[in-house]
Amino acid sequence: MDLKEYNTKIMEMVNKELSSLLDVGDQPTLKDAMMHTPMSGGKRLRPMIAMLVADTVSGQGKKAMPFGLTLEVVHNFTLVHDDIMDKDDFRRGIPTVHKKWDEATAINAGDALFARAIEILAMTDTTPEVFHELVNLVASMVRRIGEGQQWDMEFENRDDVTEDEYLKMIERKTALMFMTGAKGGTLIAGGTKDQAEAMWEYGRHIGIGFQIRDDWLNLAADPTKFKKPIGGDLRSAKKTIIWIHATANSTKEQLAPVLEVFGNQDATKQQVDMAILALKDIGSLDYAQRKAEEHASRAREMLLTIPDNEHRSCLEQLIAYMVEREK
Amino acid sequence: MDLKEYNTKIMEMVNKELSSLLDVGDQPTLKDAMMHTPMSGGKRLRPMIAMLVADTVSGQGKKAMPFGLTLEVVHNFTLVHDDIMDKDDFRRGIPTVHKKWDEATAINAGDALFARAIEILAMTDTTPEVFHELVNLVASMVRRIGEGQQWDMEFENRDDVTEDEYLKMIERKTALMFMTGAKGGTLIAGGTKDQAEAMWEYGRHIGIGFQIRDDWLNLAADPTKFKKPIGGDLRSAKKTIIWIHATANSTKEQLAPVLEVFGNQDATKQQVDMAILALKDIGSLDYAQRKAEEHASRAREMLLTIPDNEHRSCLEQLIAYMVEREK
Repeated sequence: MDLKEYNTKIMEMVNKELSSLLDVGDQPTLKDAMMHTPMSGGKRLRPMIAMLVADTVSGQGKKAMPFGLTLEVVHNFTLVHDDIMDKDDFRRGIPTVHKKWDEATAINAGDALFARAIEILAMTDTTPEVFHELVNLVASMVRRIGEGQQWDMEFENRDDVTEDEYLKMIERKTALMFMTGAKGGTLIAGGTKDQAEAMWEYGRHIGIGFQIRDDWLNLAADPTKFKKPIGGDLRSAKKTIIWIHATANSTKEQLAPVLEVFGNQDATKQQVDMAILALKDIGSLDYAQRKAEEHASRAREMLLTIPDNEHRSCLEQLIAYMVEREK
Repeated sequence: MDLKEYNTKIMEMVNKELSSLLDVGDQPTLKDAMMHTPMSGGKRLRPMIAMLVADTVSGQGKKAMPFGLTLEVVHNFTLVHDDIMDKDDFRRGIPTVHKKWDEATAINAGDALFARAIEILAMTDTTPEVFHELVNLVASMVRRIGEGQQWDMEFENRDDVTEDEYLKMIERKTALMFMTGAKGGTLIAGGTKDQAEAMWEYGRHIGIGFQIRDDWLNLAADPTKFKKPIGGDLRSAKKTIIWIHATANSTKEQLAPVLEVFGNQDATKQQVDMAILALKDIGSLDYAQRKAEEHASRAREMLLTIPDNEHRSCLEQLIAYMVEREK
């Protein structure tokens, strides 16, 4: 079985389960608003990781399903609220909840999704000890994602963001759900504490690697394959690892072409090309690429702690999918 | 021990515990925004009910403390989000979170408070079965509070709200936290299923009775004792039980003085007095008063299922405090 096959199976199962588990309560508007984002698509990576790890550890992927669904619903709750905070009007090609309804309904729907996620978590068939740990894992995850979101918003108004701060932010905002999924999947499958910790680290490395690869692709991807406009992060003044490295490792002259594009939504394609050339010269693109590769390789090491089987091979393929992808 | 004494003790304990339990994480802005509302006061009624019931059932009030704190933190999270939804700029005399910081920070702080509430719940010292039930109780409570809030917002744009709909709305928005507190307190104290169900009903009756009494006081209170301006609900077009009763049980002529004030922020004191007289004539004030008394008396009956001791007497006094108060 390869990763693609496994993912197809998971997507079907998750879509079916979610459409029934979110059809809850007796307030029609709230129900529609709750279902809007979760049922609009997505690769279901978070439940997949939880189930794939559980399958690898002891073939008990199915047992990790409610926990995986919890993560998927939490993920969607954070999307609904982030879209309000970031004033994004579209997601996956359709209007966001606050755009289709209004902000009040979107706040309320996000809250209700979070609550429903905890109800779904309580459907997990596991030992009391593991259930208790899962409750703690999920709750502290959501709180720390909030910290990541707060930093992300604050970084917009700061010019002195360090690489360590950037890494802490993306660990909370992006990696933590993968860390929680991989660790929780291990616990549900009856894995050891050491395995659970190693899977936590696996989640960290694929999550951070995924975000760094995203920053890199935004500037260095093959434009015929990559879905977003090349240089978009520069135009919208995102403080990525590449920007942070460049500002700390360049002369004023070297950085000048980058500054012309940074935060300039009207920058021309030629200006963007010159900025990318400058970032190559400074070494920031290679630096990010090297960092992403390091995380991919650390993630691979972590997999050695769990049984070598066809499911583990899917977890290996997942590293390539997340950290070495071309699009 | 009387209710006032018990409440003073609880307020001290809750304030002390909250100030340490909410001092969490490493994101200064988020932490300040999380603490803003919970540390700005409040009678701590929700933790008090949980602990008072647990003390009555088996003298184990302290054991119900983390659960009570969970409810208090959830209560405050809903206040933070409701203030955004309702565009309220002040609460307890100070700026609301979205006013002091901004909407994005307030959404984020509310989410983080909800997450923290679940972490605090996981500190409960109880059996795995009770812990599992508490997780379900709290999660479904939050989801149903969201349904109540959605109805409340929808009722603003509807002219045909029925009494049953009104009751369903206030049960979710107001009573459910008391129901959950009283039932959860019973379970933590080792009470029987029947006692837990009776306390659930106790919470329902004091919660609904509290809201109906609030509607009544808004029109019939002694203005020297009541804190809010008399007739405020009429001026702001709130569809209270009194309004719903009046519209369904009056002639056009009888209702005319009420319609002059309903939704009219500029109505004079004389107009408000005439509207109140009309509502008395129609019988709507007496109707609400009778309903509140019925709930008080049903709440009293429910108390007969738990041991008769000094703590139960506090629960009796609480009925008077909530449903028969003058202010």
